[in-house]
Amino acid sequence: MSDILAKLAKILEQRKQAQPDSSYVARLYDEGVDAILKKIGEESTELIVAAKSGSANEVVHETADLWFHTLVLLASQGLTADDVLHELERRFGVSGLDEKARRGSPK
Amino acid sequence: MSDILAKLAKILEQRKQAQPDSSYVARLYDEGVDAILKKIGEESTELIVAAKSGSANEVVHETADLWFHTLVLLASQGLTADDVLHELERRFGVSGLDEKARRGSPK
Amino acid sequence: MSDILAKLAKILEQRKQAQPDSSYVARLYDEGVDAILKKIGEESTELIVAAKSGSANEVVHETADLWFHTLVLLASQGLTADDVLHELERRFGVSGLDEKARRGSPK
Amino acid sequence: MSDILAKLAKILEQRKQAQPDSSYVARLYDEGVDAILKKIGEESTELIVAAKSGSANEVVHETADLWFHTLVLLASQGLTADDVLHELERRFGVSGLDEKARRGSPK
Repeated sequence: MSDILAKLAKILEQRKQAQPDSSYVARLYDEGVDAILKKIGEESTELIVAAKSGSANEVVHETADLWFHTLVLLASQGLTADDVLHELERRFGVSGLDEKARRGSPK
Repeated sequence: MSDILAKLAKILEQRKQAQPDSSYVARLYDEGVDAILKKIGEESTELIVAAKSGSANEVVHETADLWFHTLVLLASQGLTADDVLHELERRFGVSGLDEKARRGSPK
Repeated sequence: MSDILAKLAKILEQRKQAQPDSSYVARLYDEGVDAILKKIGEESTELIVAAKSGSANEVVHETADLWFHTLVLLASQGLTADDVLHELERRFGVSGLDEKARRGSPK
Repeated sequence: MSDILAKLAKILEQRKQAQPDSSYVARLYDEGVDAILKKIGEESTELIVAAKSGSANEVVHETADLWFHTLVLLASQGLTADDVLHELERRFGVSGLDEKARRGSPK
């Protein structure tokens, strides 16, 4: 896992002990999974709108927002970015082949 | 950047030279940004549905799908996961503080 | 309810008796609520992309797709467009006042 | 068009003359199409979450929110619910046949 993803995993774990009013993430945990999922839906929409409006800077910013909230979701379920990176490794890493290309579709 | 993200960045770069019918990613590039954004919307919805249905395994799988398609979007715009990780580093890394908590909201 | 919404409600009710392979809607019912929700996420994304690409015709087309799939969802839950129109009537109809404006937000 | 949809079309048209700070809708118009699309993405996510959480009442409420914001989008583009209802009529009305079933897919 990259340094920043490891660092974020640690921060997100610590936030589980924090008071809801002391931290944005602690508040999301407290509000529950529906609140986190609504943020994921929002950030996904904002990324789509940003990509259509054409600023590379905004695309990076909105992707960061989207990834961040997926990390909060993962943490809330006892998962980490490592689980996702292992899944990507499983699909793409060993052979360097694009598994999705062979399947014709990612589903 | 983690090894797998670096590996994926390389694969996604190579796919830009591939024939559309030779690879899932090459086909997405060929169809253009709207097709990539529709996949991001789809995968985001599938993650939300998976999280509500409660299987950790599906959450990991759908997050991997979502991240993968954001990586395709980034590549299509000449960006990489590194740009996003640097943005996350900028927000969370240096001080270890949760910038979002201070702002009260990630927007 | 407008004539077409009433007609659609009737068609969607009839499809509940149809074989999954005989009709697109019967197949959606058979696949269950997750499949219907994924279509709502997809159509919502397609509407957003269409609106950013600027064709009025596509906006109408994608809104029709989105409304149609919300009607399928409603039917699958034993609800109809009438329930939604009554809710809109309750909010906006009697007084002509924009309730949302008074609340400052639709939530 | 049903009475409430016609009434809403009229309200949404009047809001175009209103000061942004006088009305929720006037503020959305003023913020522009991106703000309206973000609301559509949000409401679509909230509908999906509500449908997974199982309250019929919430499904009706969130569908009303989603339809409402698509009506704001239509109005902002010089379109109305009538355009969408005509499109649905064109697809389903004349023959009573499920056009989508014949095509196998709504796309």
